[in-house]
Amino acid sequence: MTDRRLGVCYYPEHWPEDRWPEDAARMARAGIGVVRIGEFAWSRLEPSPGDFRFDWLDRAMDTLGRAGLSVVLGTPSATPPRWMLDLYPDMVPVDAAGRPRGFGSRRHYDFAHAGYRAEAARMAERLARRYGRHGALAAWQTDNEYGCHDTTQAFGPVAARAFRDWLAARYGSVEALNAAWGNVFWSMEYQDFAQIAPPNLTVTEPNPAHAMDWHRFASDQVVAFNRAQVAAIRAHSDRPILHNYMGRITDFDHWQVGADLDIATWDSYPIGFLSDRLEADPDHKRRFLRQGDPDFQAFHHDLYRGVGRGRWWVMEQQPGPVNWAPWNPAPLPGMVRLWTWEAFAHGAEVVSYFRWRQAPFAQEQMHAGLLRPDGAPAPALAEVETVAAELSALDPGAPVRGDVAIVFDYASAWATKIQPQGADFDYFRLVFDTYRAFRRAGLSVDVIGPETADLSPWALVAMPGLFTLSPALGAALARVAAQPSDAAAPTRILAGPRTNWRTPDFAIPEPLPPALPGLDLRVARVESLPPSAPVPVRGGGALLRWFEHLEGTATVTLATADGAPAAVESGAITYLAGWPDEALFDRLVAGLAARQGLRTSAMPDGLRRRRTAAGDVLLNYAPEPREHAGRTVPAAGVLLPGT
Amino acid sequence: MTDRRLGVCYYPEHWPEDRWPEDAARMARAGIGVVRIGEFAWSRLEPSPGDFRFDWLDRAMDTLGRAGLSVVLGTPSATPPRWMLDLYPDMVPVDAAGRPRGFGSRRHYDFAHAGYRAEAARMAERLARRYGRHGALAAWQTDNEYGCHDTTQAFGPVAARAFRDWLAARYGSVEALNAAWGNVFWSMEYQDFAQIAPPNLTVTEPNPAHAMDWHRFASDQVVAFNRAQVAAIRAHSDRPILHNYMGRITDFDHWQVGADLDIATWDSYPIGFLSDRLEADPDHKRRFLRQGDPDFQAFHHDLYRGVGRGRWWVMEQQPGPVNWAPWNPAPLPGMVRLWTWEAFAHGAEVVSYFRWRQAPFAQEQMHAGLLRPDGAPAPALAEVETVAAELSALDPGAPVRGDVAIVFDYASAWATKIQPQGADFDYFRLVFDTYRAFRRAGLSVDVIGPETADLSPWALVAMPGLFTLSPALGAALARVAAQPSDAAAPTRILAGPRTNWRTPDFAIPEPLPPALPGLDLRVARVESLPPSAPVPVRGGGALLRWFEHLEGTATVTLATADGAPAAVESGAITYLAGWPDEALFDRLVAGLAARQGLRTSAMPDGLRRRRTAAGDVLLNYAPEPREHAGRTVPAAGVLLPGT
Amino acid sequence: MTDRRLGVCYYPEHWPEDRWPEDAARMARAGIGVVRIGEFAWSRLEPSPGDFRFDWLDRAMDTLGRAGLSVVLGTPSATPPRWMLDLYPDMVPVDAAGRPRGFGSRRHYDFAHAGYRAEAARMAERLARRYGRHGALAAWQTDNEYGCHDTTQAFGPVAARAFRDWLAARYGSVEALNAAWGNVFWSMEYQDFAQIAPPNLTVTEPNPAHAMDWHRFASDQVVAFNRAQVAAIRAHSDRPILHNYMGRITDFDHWQVGADLDIATWDSYPIGFLSDRLEADPDHKRRFLRQGDPDFQAFHHDLYRGVGRGRWWVMEQQPGPVNWAPWNPAPLPGMVRLWTWEAFAHGAEVVSYFRWRQAPFAQEQMHAGLLRPDGAPAPALAEVETVAAELSALDPGAPVRGDVAIVFDYASAWATKIQPQGADFDYFRLVFDTYRAFRRAGLSVDVIGPETADLSPWALVAMPGLFTLSPALGAALARVAAQPSDAAAPTRILAGPRTNWRTPDFAIPEPLPPALPGLDLRVARVESLPPSAPVPVRGGGALLRWFEHLEGTATVTLATADGAPAAVESGAITYLAGWPDEALFDRLVAGLAARQGLRTSAMPDGLRRRRTAAGDVLLNYAPEPREHAGRTVPAAGVLLPGT
Repeated sequence: MTDRRLGVCYYPEHWPEDRWPEDAARMARAGIGVVRIGEFAWSRLEPSPGDFRFDWLDRAMDTLGRAGLSVVLGTPSATPPRWMLDLYPDMVPVDAAGRPRGFGSRRHYDFAHAGYRAEAARMAERLARRYGRHGALAAWQTDNEYGCHDTTQAFGPVAARAFRDWLAARYGSVEALNAAWGNVFWSMEYQDFAQIAPPNLTVTEPNPAHAMDWHRFASDQVVAFNRAQVAAIRAHSDRPILHNYMGRITDFDHWQVGADLDIATWDSYPIGFLSDRLEADPDHKRRFLRQGDPDFQAFHHDLYRGVGRGRWWVMEQQPGPVNWAPWNPAPLPGMVRLWTWEAFAHGAEVVSYFRWRQAPFAQEQMHAGLLRPDGAPAPALAEVETVAAELSALDPGAPVRGDVAIVFDYASAWATKIQPQGADFDYFRLVFDTYRAFRRAGLSVDVIGPETADLSPWALVAMPGLFTLSPALGAALARVAAQPSDAAAPTRILAGPRTNWRTPDFAIPEPLPPALPGLDLRVARVESLPPSAPVPVRGGGALLRWFEHLEGTATVTLATADGAPAAVESGAITYLAGWPDEALFDRLVAGLAARQGLRTSAMPDGLRRRRTAAGDVLLNYAPEPREHAGRTVPAAGVLLPGT
Repeated sequence: MTDRRLGVCYYPEHWPEDRWPEDAARMARAGIGVVRIGEFAWSRLEPSPGDFRFDWLDRAMDTLGRAGLSVVLGTPSATPPRWMLDLYPDMVPVDAAGRPRGFGSRRHYDFAHAGYRAEAARMAERLARRYGRHGALAAWQTDNEYGCHDTTQAFGPVAARAFRDWLAARYGSVEALNAAWGNVFWSMEYQDFAQIAPPNLTVTEPNPAHAMDWHRFASDQVVAFNRAQVAAIRAHSDRPILHNYMGRITDFDHWQVGADLDIATWDSYPIGFLSDRLEADPDHKRRFLRQGDPDFQAFHHDLYRGVGRGRWWVMEQQPGPVNWAPWNPAPLPGMVRLWTWEAFAHGAEVVSYFRWRQAPFAQEQMHAGLLRPDGAPAPALAEVETVAAELSALDPGAPVRGDVAIVFDYASAWATKIQPQGADFDYFRLVFDTYRAFRRAGLSVDVIGPETADLSPWALVAMPGLFTLSPALGAALARVAAQPSDAAAPTRILAGPRTNWRTPDFAIPEPLPPALPGLDLRVARVESLPPSAPVPVRGGGALLRWFEHLEGTATVTLATADGAPAAVESGAITYLAGWPDEALFDRLVAGLAARQGLRTSAMPDGLRRRRTAAGDVLLNYAPEPREHAGRTVPAAGVLLPGT
Repeated sequence: MTDRRLGVCYYPEHWPEDRWPEDAARMARAGIGVVRIGEFAWSRLEPSPGDFRFDWLDRAMDTLGRAGLSVVLGTPSATPPRWMLDLYPDMVPVDAAGRPRGFGSRRHYDFAHAGYRAEAARMAERLARRYGRHGALAAWQTDNEYGCHDTTQAFGPVAARAFRDWLAARYGSVEALNAAWGNVFWSMEYQDFAQIAPPNLTVTEPNPAHAMDWHRFASDQVVAFNRAQVAAIRAHSDRPILHNYMGRITDFDHWQVGADLDIATWDSYPIGFLSDRLEADPDHKRRFLRQGDPDFQAFHHDLYRGVGRGRWWVMEQQPGPVNWAPWNPAPLPGMVRLWTWEAFAHGAEVVSYFRWRQAPFAQEQMHAGLLRPDGAPAPALAEVETVAAELSALDPGAPVRGDVAIVFDYASAWATKIQPQGADFDYFRLVFDTYRAFRRAGLSVDVIGPETADLSPWALVAMPGLFTLSPALGAALARVAAQPSDAAAPTRILAGPRTNWRTPDFAIPEPLPPALPGLDLRVARVESLPPSAPVPVRGGGALLRWFEHLEGTATVTLATADGAPAAVESGAITYLAGWPDEALFDRLVAGLAARQGLRTSAMPDGLRRRRTAAGDVLLNYAPEPREHAGRTVPAAGVLLPGT
């Protein structure tokens, strides 16, 4: 693994120029090799329209390069300068309540705005022409955290026009659209594409087909916006291009954006995410307050390894308290090292900390860096230096194929948000609960996309909540179903609940779902259930939130206390009638893994393992030591293979 | 009861025409006699302005008629087609936050919009002319669920203009309005009606008199909108006209709308209502999750029997899981039969299920029908067939007068919403708690309107929370008060708390409330109380939420632990100083019923009885069998008289 | 204390003129000497533009004067009449969501609107010219409850223009503003003041420096609005001018408004505030439901004594249930007397009840007065008469200097709201928790402003959460630090957490906070903590919500269970690393007070004492009797010195 490197995010424009060489030298001394710069600097690169000021960036690049650092240069499109709004007053996003949002923070643009899209590409092109072959340049970053602050969707006239064009291109005729959406239902039929609006502010819920196309359209705008910059850069630079995704953002399709890029990166804030973006019981949140959830980071590592087709980084790694979660405690000593090694264990090429020095001004002044605002080292810096030293000595090896895979599909997240049917049914959460169950069993997981055409690399593939089957995945499933359907099926599928539940037009298919190959099974009726009404399953555990009444000839392998099917099986496919609780998930995973000959182990609370080429990496998120396989992992500690 | 029939809601426009005959035949075979159609079909009846297409409806009516089915034809005004908004861009409702709501669902119109009101009447007239004497036509339905999705009130310029005209008509001069509202209070005096706006978006709360007139105005718009259609239909048809009200909608006056109609119907979704529209403790919600609340349906049955002056139906009966509540479980086996028989026991002429076949597309694709989306029978169908068979064999008899009556008044709901004084004081809930207490005692109840002119038919009449006394009701009360005031008063009144608490102009009357005939009583002071501070009553039970300090010479019949009056009595009138909890309500009802010689019985949890001409119908909402009068009622079961 | 008087709020315009003499006589008989009138009467004083009608006010003043009553006359600017909006349609406030708010209640104006500001001053001038030397006139009140109903800030074009002018005046150049705000951060740099908008509706949080200037600007508009009226009045009248502030309103600077006035008054609604404006555990809220919080009133008394530079009143004293809190119970018998005496014990000149007679109409019809709406005495009247009798017999003496002082600073409240960093960090609450700790120890407290230039009068001064040190306070602190730093320091400081935490430009200072004189201390890192994660302190108690990692040579006087500094000391300054819970606060206060030789006593729950020139006044907020120093204070009772 020659490419494992540490990085940091740096803002030369925030500091006096005479501090740059000293900062660069200190970074290098800490073992940092990669520095990301530039992604918010538009007002300094072009203070007024056409007045480009690259001199300071030239000097910054040179200074960093001279210190032996490689640079990731960000396009500054997440922060259009104020004058841009004078050129394009309608570029600001209009929110779902119909309010144009203002200048004064960031991400104040509508992805569908053609004028701004061209400006952003133009700036990317200028940067690429100037720095595309700079010796210090390692890679490009497009924009910053697409979709953050709920910005994927805008609801103003600009987006409305683009949506109509998008619909016209998709359906050809308004009659086809009416038929596809089922607009006869409430006399919602259109006579002309010009009559169609975004689905916000309807009197009651809009047609789910309307809402689904709106989600697709909005996601496509992100893809197109990114693609315009990628094209502009590729014309002048041979360096890889990446984007830094944010955790648990599901409103655009990362697989599709990722297809245009060379590397996927994400911004990993374990403690902020625990407080802000994780459903968990209060005791869990209290226990992991200063460590983050033991599976949340790993899930995203595995997701972005998939999105990046093997190449992925952590672009922003939390190094201390942040400023944006409801509460912002400090990491337990050791956690910065643990998070870093966990990323490497999952195959990251680079782990880059956000940020070098805490800014004393503006919005993120309470966001810790590796240096304090007064320039003294923050606690994380010593852990970074430890990792840097360990990096040269220890090698978790190249990333390895997971024992099991989970399909993660953004369209399914949209569809479930549009039609949850139960107030607490969330697609991400369903997939993540499945992921956690695999992790509690000590398994290493790959996260794969909905267009995956070959499932044979994995002994077990889960696909809960999948909105619809792509032709590719359908064909792959058919091949799995065609395996000799005995106990020795090389690949086994764990489907359900809500797998292949709608047509692409958001209609209930006929025959009824799930219509999986080789499985005689129909979901005859669906119930959503409040937390007070779990469905107990014989032998232990229960189904939560959701219960499908199953019909067909597939073998019942688990039954509810009332004798209804809780899981059925036919050939290599197991289908679940509901959302298992932890106990039931553990039973299921243990049973399936045993049949597939997978090496499992019931991991103690907080302890996780990730298989690498060099052996298991053990990571202890618990605030107490944990035992595993005869070895003790300290609180907030890591055991690397061969140590 | 020759007219007890089963019905179903059907959407021929949703299905290929060649399926219609088969559907009709299957309905008839199931014992269904009534089919409601057409209420959302405007875009198919008039795809563009003036382009009427009745051919398909002709064929649908004929097909259904040929199968022996009677048709209820709905006017499609709940779903104006998209082109209507091009004609009348200002017809869309503006919400209380000032936002025009868009096309793409239903009910996207402002009741006060004269142009759309005329269009809706015009369409009703076209339908009435064509089908008004069609052999298959049983009745007309106007629109669909007035007020659903919070659409009774709109706050835009159209409504504002109409409100000003309404005020000018009510008050004659702006000086009279200023005086009636007490606008001197905060210099809120107007010089001209043109200066008056709807009461939304004031800086702090508006004048309650302003808000009350706004509620009256909005309710009147619904009445006028409905009346326009009724007039259009009556000109060309002799069939009865009805509307399908929705559960627990109180923002327009159903008594007034009902006065223009021949039959009242309502849409009964017991499981959805339990989850979405009922305050109850979590244990109650868990126990009745798959059955619905044991009293919620009965209350509405009794209400709409009153609104329909004896003639009432269930137009939409829930047959399985729905799509719109926070959680949507399936009914316990037996409940569809139970709900149906309960409606008949309360005197329904027709119980009609929503809907025939689950639609695979658009907003309600998760709403169960009698058929599944693939056309197979859903579980409810067998229960419907059971009821159909029982209908011919069993007869609960004609509806009978209730043992007791409760006054239910929409203006009181508005007044209490405008001035709750305590955060959890809700008029519907107060009335419903009173209703439940009667039901727990095994009593049969009539719900009567605020204009009731004769109370003598009932041994006991409750009127909690009544905003003001109408002249008619006041005269009826005076006659009750003039009864020989001994223990044998034929009619006894249970008033309070908050009975006759304001003048029609929303001022505190002088003398102070309640000012009931023959009752020397003044509410000297009022306290609203949080849930943590009930007022215990000597002998058991407590007052909740509300406590009135009573003054006067009426006899104290219940006292608080501190010795203050909790209930007083004079002649035939008992007045309550607060909102009784269950225990106190049960004491009160038992005592009053005993004095009035009513036959009571403490009903076991979940079991309810309704007196019919043929004897008691027993309905068991509990998930376990229940005993009553030596007989066992199965879980989710019904015992009919003579069985 | 010759000036202790009782007062009442009266609205002659609400009642028939023939009732005025009788009302005035009844007031005088009850011992009331002061009557406030006029503050909402604009529509009666000027029914249309320029049409002044002072005749009725002349007669009202004369009637009251003849009864021996002194009058406080309010300027009616809180209720601009409807015609004013025709003159200035843009005077209505635009809320943070961008919605213009409407007419129909009160406070419907934007403080920054120059036209309305002039109109309000013009009306004040007309009143001052006519009544400025009237024999019955005791004082003027400007407007009513500035800031109530969240009206300090308006976000429309009028305010935006004024904000730009304010910024231009503050910064001189847009470059200076960009530098001060750190606008380089996200390319937020402006080229022209004209580009700057209020900080609402940004996509994510605005720059805190932007938000802080917005708060300063908005506060300055209140100051300027008030100053315009003060100037208009002073030109024609020699009577003192006051304003009635509302409880727990922190969004404008009361010290600055107060500097232009002669007397500070506030509106004291103990029971409403407990329900509506106090964070407390449910048991506390239940225990004090009918009494109010034992410290909330006292804090405001001490605050407004400071704001009024010694001269202060209660302008509106709650006399019974109000109409605006979530729940509105009645006071325990005795509480009206207790609240009144508590105000006098803290030095009030006047305690005035709101209102004379309960209005039967409009928004406040459920707000109790001293008379009921039917004119009969409400329960409070007898308590008022008791106090009136006691007033002549008992004298708590002139106000005395507090044992200790707390700095209260509005800018700190704004800064903490802008950057709470933890979801439950609130500046008022931090200061109030400190205040309560002093009161639990039986200490009398002064509340002092951020410009206090001399701390030597107090043995102990707390300054938690102080955003920044003013030059004056900094110099005072330096003098404290220069005291001989032994145990006998005459003044001791309790600082932290979050003291002097930012520069005036809202940047992290360098050296790091707190940078207090004589204290070698840096806050190296900050954690905000959820309620589930307190930091235990050795010896008892814990830090909540907030924990600062302290660095430096100051002596550690308290340590966390993990051994980190919880409090440090150097010379006369103690600095706290977090927000103490009650137990820790009690330890701290007991220790510091003992060192300073202060007379403390652990007050029983609900019992409070206030030192006066005549001795201690004991006030029992508990619903049971309490013992103190060998004496028993009845439930809801008062013990006055010498009784």
